[in-house]
Amino acid sequence: FGAPPPAANDPMWGYFTAIAGQDGEIDAEELQRCLTQAGFTGSYTPFSLETCRIMIGMLDRDFTGKMGFNEFKDLFVALNGWKQNFMMFDQDRSGTVEPHEMSQAINSMGEDRYRVSPQTLNAIIKRYNKGGRIYFDDYVACCVRLRGLTESFRRRDTMQQGSVTFQYDDFILSTMAI
Amino acid sequence: FGAPPPAANDPMWGYFTAIAGQDGEIDAEELQRCLTQAGFTGSYTPFSLETCRIMIGMLDRDFTGKMGFNEFKDLFVALNGWKQNFMMFDQDRSGTVEPHEMSQAINSMGEDRYRVSPQTLNAIIKRYNKGGRIYFDDYVACCVRLRGLTESFRRRDTMQQGSVTFQYDDFILSTMAI
Ligand SMILES: [Ca+2]
Ligand SMILES: [Ca+2]
Ligand SMILES: [Ca+2]
Repeated sequence: FGAPPPAANDPMWGYFTAIAGQDGEIDAEELQRCLTQAGFTGSYTPFSLETCRIMIGMLDRDFTGKMGFNEFKDLFVALNGWKQNFMMFDQDRSGTVEPHEMSQAINSMGEDRYRVSPQTLNAIIKRYNKGGRIYFDDYVACCVRLRGLTESFRRRDTMQQGSVTFQYDDFILSTMAI
Repeated sequence: FGAPPPAANDPMWGYFTAIAGQDGEIDAEELQRCLTQAGFTGSYTPFSLETCRIMIGMLDRDFTGKMGFNEFKDLFVALNGWKQNFMMFDQDRSGTVEPHEMSQAINSMGEDRYRVSPQTLNAIIKRYNKGGRIYFDDYVACCVRLRGLTESFRRRDTMQQGSVTFQYDDFILSTMAI
């Protein structure tokens, strides 16, 4: 409920239904196939299944493990932004960016009290680098998780104070699915 | 500092140093190679690099992205426990367990106020299943993350009340590295 029915003349609707199949929703395997066939990653390595599962985890607020049409469109907008950002830094098209470029990219995403400290940036880069470089697939996985976790946090930070009290179960629910 | 120097007669020490190489610490690629060569996963598919990175993230409290000897031994103990648990459920040795078996396994790990609700269990299983089954690699990734997140939470829950107030930056630091 809540969302209006998708316009039949939306150019992405036919595309979505072709991928989603009978159940009308897209799971991680379907999403991976779709992004690969659409050539979304261009000359970069296609997205791993793991990254596609994180993408679904970010948007899947009802925890069905699948994505509907509106979530699918949201994801495309976000992915395009991250891709542009990555390509801006990856000027030699090697498919990787350097840690300091990743730091800049992450810093440019947050604002005000939702910006991370140098220590946290450093921990993130340690987690997502391979041999000192960050590949496109890992970069996107990192962006998706950071956005999903930040949105979870903000939804609970109703006074916008930059702090949230979590019960254990809610902490695990907010963090394990992404 | 803090940890006593490893006993030279510890049978795992020679093994550790052979893998760790010059820097005396193990990164995700070295860990993957080591667990594969040691035949740890037996007839199951070897651990993915992603799962090995999560393993390091769980134990790497100083955020170097690498693991020292004592962390390496802790990991082996934990991995053995999870493997035994998994094999107990995977009686037909298909390499997968069913969602309700995964629920039982996760429930048997927590106690008291560190136990998750049915809704959270459901979300976790949605996240870690492939085609309705949970593979060993994903099972271990799930266990590692759940343990790491729970330990992070507990360290901050000094009054043991089952609730923690997180600043945004600390929330991201606690969750993104695992
Ligand atoms: Ca579908
Ligand atoms: Ca580059
Ligand atoms: Ca089985």
